[in-house]
Amino acid sequence: MSGIVTFGELMLRLMPEGYNRFVQAGSFEVSFGGAEANVAVSLANFGMKSIFVSKMPENQIGQAAVNSLRKYGVDVSFVKRGGDRLGIYFLEKGASQRSSLCIYDRKGSSFAMSSAEDYDWNAIFSGVSWFHVTGITPALSEQMAGITIQACKEAKSRGIKVSCDLNYRSKLWSLEKAQSVMTEIADYVDVCIANEDDAFNVFGIKTEKTDTNAGIIDKEAYSQTARLMAEKFGFEKVAITLRKSINASNNIWSAMLFDGKDSYFSREYDVQIVERVGAGDSFAAGLIYSMMNLKDMQYAVDFATAASCLKHSIESDYNHVSVAEVENLMRSAGTGRVIR
Amino acid sequence: MSGIVTFGELMLRLMPEGYNRFVQAGSFEVSFGGAEANVAVSLANFGMKSIFVSKMPENQIGQAAVNSLRKYGVDVSFVKRGGDRLGIYFLEKGASQRSSLCIYDRKGSSFAMSSAEDYDWNAIFSGVSWFHVTGITPALSEQMAGITIQACKEAKSRGIKVSCDLNYRSKLWSLEKAQSVMTEIADYVDVCIANEDDAFNVFGIKTEKTDTNAGIIDKEAYSQTARLMAEKFGFEKVAITLRKSINASNNIWSAMLFDGKDSYFSREYDVQIVERVGAGDSFAAGLIYSMMNLKDMQYAVDFATAASCLKHSIESDYNHVSVAEVENLMRSAGTGRVIR
Amino acid sequence: MSGIVTFGELMLRLMPEGYNRFVQAGSFEVSFGGAEANVAVSLANFGMKSIFVSKMPENQIGQAAVNSLRKYGVDVSFVKRGGDRLGIYFLEKGASQRSSLCIYDRKGSSFAMSSAEDYDWNAIFSGVSWFHVTGITPALSEQMAGITIQACKEAKSRGIKVSCDLNYRSKLWSLEKAQSVMTEIADYVDVCIANEDDAFNVFGIKTEKTDTNAGIIDKEAYSQTARLMAEKFGFEKVAITLRKSINASNNIWSAMLFDGKDSYFSREYDVQIVERVGAGDSFAAGLIYSMMNLKDMQYAVDFATAASCLKHSIESDYNHVSVAEVENLMRSAGTGRVIR
Amino acid sequence: MSGIVTFGELMLRLMPEGYNRFVQAGSFEVSFGGAEANVAVSLANFGMKSIFVSKMPENQIGQAAVNSLRKYGVDVSFVKRGGDRLGIYFLEKGASQRSSLCIYDRKGSSFAMSSAEDYDWNAIFSGVSWFHVTGITPALSEQMAGITIQACKEAKSRGIKVSCDLNYRSKLWSLEKAQSVMTEIADYVDVCIANEDDAFNVFGIKTEKTDTNAGIIDKEAYSQTARLMAEKFGFEKVAITLRKSINASNNIWSAMLFDGKDSYFSREYDVQIVERVGAGDSFAAGLIYSMMNLKDMQYAVDFATAASCLKHSIESDYNHVSVAEVENLMRSAGTGRVIR
Amino acid sequence: MSGIVTFGELMLRLMPEGYNRFVQAGSFEVSFGGAEANVAVSLANFGMKSIFVSKMPENQIGQAAVNSLRKYGVDVSFVKRGGDRLGIYFLEKGASQRSSLCIYDRKGSSFAMSSAEDYDWNAIFSGVSWFHVTGITPALSEQMAGITIQACKEAKSRGIKVSCDLNYRSKLWSLEKAQSVMTEIADYVDVCIANEDDAFNVFGIKTEKTDTNAGIIDKEAYSQTARLMAEKFGFEKVAITLRKSINASNNIWSAMLFDGKDSYFSREYDVQIVERVGAGDSFAAGLIYSMMNLKDMQYAVDFATAASCLKHSIESDYNHVSVAEVENLMRSAGTGRVIR
Amino acid sequence: MSGIVTFGELMLRLMPEGYNRFVQAGSFEVSFGGAEANVAVSLANFGMKSIFVSKMPENQIGQAAVNSLRKYGVDVSFVKRGGDRLGIYFLEKGASQRSSLCIYDRKGSSFAMSSAEDYDWNAIFSGVSWFHVTGITPALSEQMAGITIQACKEAKSRGIKVSCDLNYRSKLWSLEKAQSVMTEIADYVDVCIANEDDAFNVFGIKTEKTDTNAGIIDKEAYSQTARLMAEKFGFEKVAITLRKSINASNNIWSAMLFDGKDSYFSREYDVQIVERVGAGDSFAAGLIYSMMNLKDMQYAVDFATAASCLKHSIESDYNHVSVAEVENLMRSAGTGRVIR
Repeated sequence: MSGIVTFGELMLRLMPEGYNRFVQAGSFEVSFGGAEANVAVSLANFGMKSIFVSKMPENQIGQAAVNSLRKYGVDVSFVKRGGDRLGIYFLEKGASQRSSLCIYDRKGSSFAMSSAEDYDWNAIFSGVSWFHVTGITPALSEQMAGITIQACKEAKSRGIKVSCDLNYRSKLWSLEKAQSVMTEIADYVDVCIANEDDAFNVFGIKTEKTDTNAGIIDKEAYSQTARLMAEKFGFEKVAITLRKSINASNNIWSAMLFDGKDSYFSREYDVQIVERVGAGDSFAAGLIYSMMNLKDMQYAVDFATAASCLKHSIESDYNHVSVAEVENLMRSAGTGRVIR
Repeated sequence: MSGIVTFGELMLRLMPEGYNRFVQAGSFEVSFGGAEANVAVSLANFGMKSIFVSKMPENQIGQAAVNSLRKYGVDVSFVKRGGDRLGIYFLEKGASQRSSLCIYDRKGSSFAMSSAEDYDWNAIFSGVSWFHVTGITPALSEQMAGITIQACKEAKSRGIKVSCDLNYRSKLWSLEKAQSVMTEIADYVDVCIANEDDAFNVFGIKTEKTDTNAGIIDKEAYSQTARLMAEKFGFEKVAITLRKSINASNNIWSAMLFDGKDSYFSREYDVQIVERVGAGDSFAAGLIYSMMNLKDMQYAVDFATAASCLKHSIESDYNHVSVAEVENLMRSAGTGRVIR
Repeated sequence: MSGIVTFGELMLRLMPEGYNRFVQAGSFEVSFGGAEANVAVSLANFGMKSIFVSKMPENQIGQAAVNSLRKYGVDVSFVKRGGDRLGIYFLEKGASQRSSLCIYDRKGSSFAMSSAEDYDWNAIFSGVSWFHVTGITPALSEQMAGITIQACKEAKSRGIKVSCDLNYRSKLWSLEKAQSVMTEIADYVDVCIANEDDAFNVFGIKTEKTDTNAGIIDKEAYSQTARLMAEKFGFEKVAITLRKSINASNNIWSAMLFDGKDSYFSREYDVQIVERVGAGDSFAAGLIYSMMNLKDMQYAVDFATAASCLKHSIESDYNHVSVAEVENLMRSAGTGRVIR
Repeated sequence: MSGIVTFGELMLRLMPEGYNRFVQAGSFEVSFGGAEANVAVSLANFGMKSIFVSKMPENQIGQAAVNSLRKYGVDVSFVKRGGDRLGIYFLEKGASQRSSLCIYDRKGSSFAMSSAEDYDWNAIFSGVSWFHVTGITPALSEQMAGITIQACKEAKSRGIKVSCDLNYRSKLWSLEKAQSVMTEIADYVDVCIANEDDAFNVFGIKTEKTDTNAGIIDKEAYSQTARLMAEKFGFEKVAITLRKSINASNNIWSAMLFDGKDSYFSREYDVQIVERVGAGDSFAAGLIYSMMNLKDMQYAVDFATAASCLKHSIESDYNHVSVAEVENLMRSAGTGRVIR
Repeated sequence: MSGIVTFGELMLRLMPEGYNRFVQAGSFEVSFGGAEANVAVSLANFGMKSIFVSKMPENQIGQAAVNSLRKYGVDVSFVKRGGDRLGIYFLEKGASQRSSLCIYDRKGSSFAMSSAEDYDWNAIFSGVSWFHVTGITPALSEQMAGITIQACKEAKSRGIKVSCDLNYRSKLWSLEKAQSVMTEIADYVDVCIANEDDAFNVFGIKTEKTDTNAGIIDKEAYSQTARLMAEKFGFEKVAITLRKSINASNNIWSAMLFDGKDSYFSREYDVQIVERVGAGDSFAAGLIYSMMNLKDMQYAVDFATAASCLKHSIESDYNHVSVAEVENLMRSAGTGRVIR
Repeated sequence: MSGIVTFGELMLRLMPEGYNRFVQAGSFEVSFGGAEANVAVSLANFGMKSIFVSKMPENQIGQAAVNSLRKYGVDVSFVKRGGDRLGIYFLEKGASQRSSLCIYDRKGSSFAMSSAEDYDWNAIFSGVSWFHVTGITPALSEQMAGITIQACKEAKSRGIKVSCDLNYRSKLWSLEKAQSVMTEIADYVDVCIANEDDAFNVFGIKTEKTDTNAGIIDKEAYSQTARLMAEKFGFEKVAITLRKSINASNNIWSAMLFDGKDSYFSREYDVQIVERVGAGDSFAAGLIYSMMNLKDMQYAVDFATAASCLKHSIESDYNHVSVAEVENLMRSAGTGRVIR
């Protein structure tokens, strides 16, 4: 089985128990997460050979982070150890009209401060056929932008498929910087994943007639957005996730996939949210899984959407579902009967 | 007050905290449950003289199981102690499109391995006027099938009313075996409880024009199913629970009761699910309570449905509601105002 | 900044974990609450100078109660220490059709048994421009009724604005007693807060054409109720909260404010309930905040409603939201996107 | 099997998790306890027919208290329901040089306010051969003193053995009152249980040459104390527990039993304390068990001491050990090897 | 780096929180353990290439067990999936004079029911230089005895070092059976690990002048026991752990190692016990680590004893300590100063 | 009452539950701590006017930190809000031979990056008569060293008493840097607090004939150390804490105080450790309390030692004990009898 490499930062995630706000918290649930690592774990849970590349500190907090990946079968051979600290993010779970709140404390992390020498792409890419990265990694520092571009170039030159989730984060870099770097990265990308905000922020492509808060989604407009992206940057495929936010407890979730010619839309899921963090990452993993296994376009968007629909019911950055469970949802009405 | 005997297996129930999946669990909540024991606890909570008959191991896990019944006032004088182990079931709570998952580890339990000598029906049935059993007990082993038939026969011969919840479990026995044994048991049964799947699986009676996943329920069709069951097996009464599954977090719940002549339908409840395990058992208990107290048909189906509606809001196999609470819901709009 | 005084009882609140019923509870979450203290904490969280006046025992339970107020910045200089015990209330959280259940154990508390000498209104009201009280304080005892009337009179005589939330509690006093005492208090009240039940119970003013359980709310009828209250008792302003109870997990929440001439209605929020205790108190605090800061009527009712809408997502008597968070909800669609 | 009646108050016990002080507590562990109920549960755990007589409120907190006794097999048929509230005690666990701290909030409890009519001694004492009471019950109120004396008289007149644990609590009554009432009770007592402080406080009998804090215990002096008590009040037997307090985490525990002629001393146990609450009650239960089963004096003091030694390792008012476990400790070195 | 193979059963371990007895438990902490797996994790934590061979069910409980090994870096490529269930053991933590209590529920486990075909020793032993097994594996069934002997033979024939911890468990097999099978296994064993009870039970070699409960340990006698074992079975090395049990909270721990000529004794540690399960396994791992790294005899016994001393402070079957931590204790006084 | 100012960093403290190691942790207990803040809370708990000066970020984590001080009555008016992040420290609790482990993640904190302009010493020192600082604050950065020296100078110039706890932390700065800065600070210090390691590391003064790990403490040698320090730097008083480390669970704790002429020694406490973090800080607070209240030397050292002895029984950086509790221990044998 050929491998899939993801490259990014894994953070310590600290979340108050239940629906407690930060000022009420007597304890934090400990887990680990990060856009790329989430994809890596999802892929391992789908039974794929998943390799995560990163840098983490040589202390026990770093060790716990490594262990969280090994636990689910991710290959951590290329996780470099060293540097000062593991990045942290504090997550407060929202409900009803109260939004989830995310406080980043990731500056100066071992990964953000890592250098090109930390990554031996020749060794990393041996036996690998897919490389996945997101817009968060190059946003961490000038240096990380360079390393990310270099990694994509290295992958491309070896005939490895490259997927990229735009994942624009305004707290990490400016629109101008993002546009400039991501445009450079786009050169090497085969499969581009985005939502309508990313498309607009990063590439300046606006999706018309859509107001996700008002629950209005125009299929034709999304197809047009995907087509424009594919044409402008030469992406082989473009995937867009479609979230209608009712409130913090209830969303409508679906997605589309464009193959340069046609647009394929998934079923819509009315989800009661346990947690929405990581939904996009689980979608990306579903897409990669489908393409690595040479599934057709409709299967791909259906599988990725069903996988990420299930993610909304799981408390964690990681998506803990198997291929069988995803396919079962694809086939069924999603009515949640007890399995016994 | 004359007693009600239930006969079945009580299992150790282990459930990850919150919505955690098994692979995420750092601890399991400990409780105990089993279809017949659930009925016994419900009845004790309704103030009835409830006697549970079973066999449990002589160790501290068995003791904790016994204690869980005593705590709620169930008479455990006829719980035999001995054998190898308490059956276990692992329960993972679902949400939204993710189903609850149940892993049975009940093979070789003290109850499943028990023999006819463990139960002195003469002593057990003294001062008793109702006997309840479900399709799970005879499914546990060839021997348990025999013991269950014998128990029903013994009850019948003493003029004790016999109720049976079909509760077909495909993991425990085949359709053929179930049909053959349950048909034999049916001879002794006065009140039969089922859902449309049980009716079809166990007795081959199909409810037309109904697709619970699609939320379509045809009242006339259900009446017909009940009538056919009553006619074929001579049941005095047939009760059918009606569940429209929207998803794992939201169901529409109601029920009907057929008395050989007319069908009585309860109100429909739109339930936000805390837990749906044991709903059917709490319905059966509500029915038995009503009939033991000589209530009319409409009260019976209303009480049983309201009791089991409340069960959906309680995390446990057992239903912890009083008669006053159930009747309060029957009278009110079920809007859940704070009682203060 | 001039201060706001609230006067009332702070109780120890004990709640089973999760959705457990009292008979299932292995532990109680410890917090503190009481209608007036809840307003005091809300105001402190809005950055106001909030002073809570009460009496609490000299033991460690009383100390923990004091600490719970200090933690959020409430001034406790006028909390008298002494007496026998801290009042307690046990809270069981409802869900779906099961109502929340509240058991009071507050008799003989340090506050209920306190005497006029415990409160030096001259010192308390120095530098203060608002006084808030609710119908619970005078209901605690004959003596507390007298002290409350005295406090309102003292406030009024110093030109301090007086607001009163009717908060009728049938477990604490009779309709007759409530009507007589509250009518006397009304003489000193500038801003009266109520729901339609309070208006009817305490002042005998019935809101027509309204059935909150059925979700029917007639705006004109509410305006009429407010107008009648204002006319009869000379209130400068009357605020009424409007709750449509779907079930214990889902309510529609809005409010109106009448300024003697016009009625201002807020937006309606469809809330998925984490907890509804203290919603009215957080509404009162929102109103006081707006008026202390000289906002217009529409802002006032919008702010108070948004603040109390958010309260439904927070597990605690206290409302832990900032002015920025409330205003953010007022501006937005309330779709709960992750803030990151 | 003839029954043993205990008569006293069962309280809700609230304890911060771990070694937290009250001001740190985010939750309280919920359990129930009271000197006499503790004896009742111990006896039920020893397989005896144990009947607890008391009064508890008709609400869910009272129900949980009743359930805590039923769970362990105590007969609660004579627990009267009614009155205002369940008494509460808050317990903060000490360690090392920090003492455990107990805050009583038991005034006005259903039991303390109960009246003679609540107890039908004729029915209660039917089929009973032992009655146990402690000095706490008569200390609760003037009325409870009268009821306790009456109960002892009723027991004595039926030839029932009466045991009494002096259990002097200075927070509940004065020395004078205690001496007067306990002296009257002493007339009906066959077996008196005390420690050296109780003997001095209640009966004015001082144990010479003993300083338990300094770890000095003079066997002869204790024998003399027991002899004086037996002579003065006509007790058939006197038992004295001997505790050398090193610190809150480490005590030396033993006991003596005097039969009117000879003194029997148990082995000394060096205990690492998990919890010391209820040690005296578990000792009393061990003594009653031994005497009900006609064991000899040395066995009785050895069994009672071993049972109460084990109690120190259990977090709860109740002692959860079986006869087999106690006898195993009596026979062994108490080295705590893993049983597997 | 050449690998170390361990072969045995991994069980689900369920333990009440804190010092709760089984009958008090509201939840069980979930972990996994088993003598051989414990050794495997210890070795992985020491940075060794550790391979665990076993069979576990194909369900989510089995998956969680596999994950618990992967998390710490154990190679699970040769863990066969299939069969009915994961074995379970319930553990109740003792304290002071109360022993820890272990209830096995492991009958019919996937591992115990596995067959010779499940293990391809040729593949398993490729690149391996050490094989470790204990007396528990052959005790599980007649078949497992045969498979264990076969595995040892296969290892020996490939020049792989074989170590065996006698680990006699009376609940699993008889003395006769144990003696017969272990004697056969002994033929292939290079390094034998035991305590004095194992030596006597399994090989009939009695250690004179020793009473561990009384804290008496005679060094010469232990040397003699080791010598007899080495002579009788041709072991290259014999290691004996020396535990003086004061009580369940306090033990004195040391060990000896005999190399056919001389006996090497470790320092004695006075341990305050957090948990003593798995201490022997952590000792075995320390020994294997030392020998694989060609350390001298004194280092080996010192390292193994220090590692297992630290294990007593860790709640889990697995020993979570690094080589650096163990060596740090070897060098220091073990006074536990805060590292900051 | 005149105020006491402490100046330092307050960190978020994250600790695995119970004795879990970092790699085992599923949650972290959330609290806050830092040497100087610990002193501030202790003083507030003693009823003193305690003012904490620092800088914390403007986010919810910073707010929770501020709240943790307000909760216990510390004046936070001079806590500046701003900067990037709250410093974090991870704490793993040791036991027996396993040391507690502390991982600092405090680089770049709002406090460490604060500038002189953040502190208006004129306003801060108004109405203040004591200033306390430790060797940690100046170690945080070059800039903080300067600010600390400036603060001491400002205090001194206003006739405010200055106390300093040397608290040498090798992870924060070099010996050379510490010696140079602390020597400069010493000029302004009236009361110096240290242990023998600090005295040697910071001032090069070696205490002879002492090996705390071996439990050897020579009173004369300590007096000599104190005298040398007083002479060399002109300290008015020197206090030295004396810890004999048996292991991580058991220490012997005492202290001495030198007033320029005589040395006063406290009693020795044999402590069973719940937690030893913050013991030195609670000692410093006890000393300041005594001196602010003009107690004599013997009382001062006795009070400070008893206060810090009790700290060992409390899980938190903060010491939650009252003056009455400390004095009670000073008077008693410290045997930990239950207070009821």
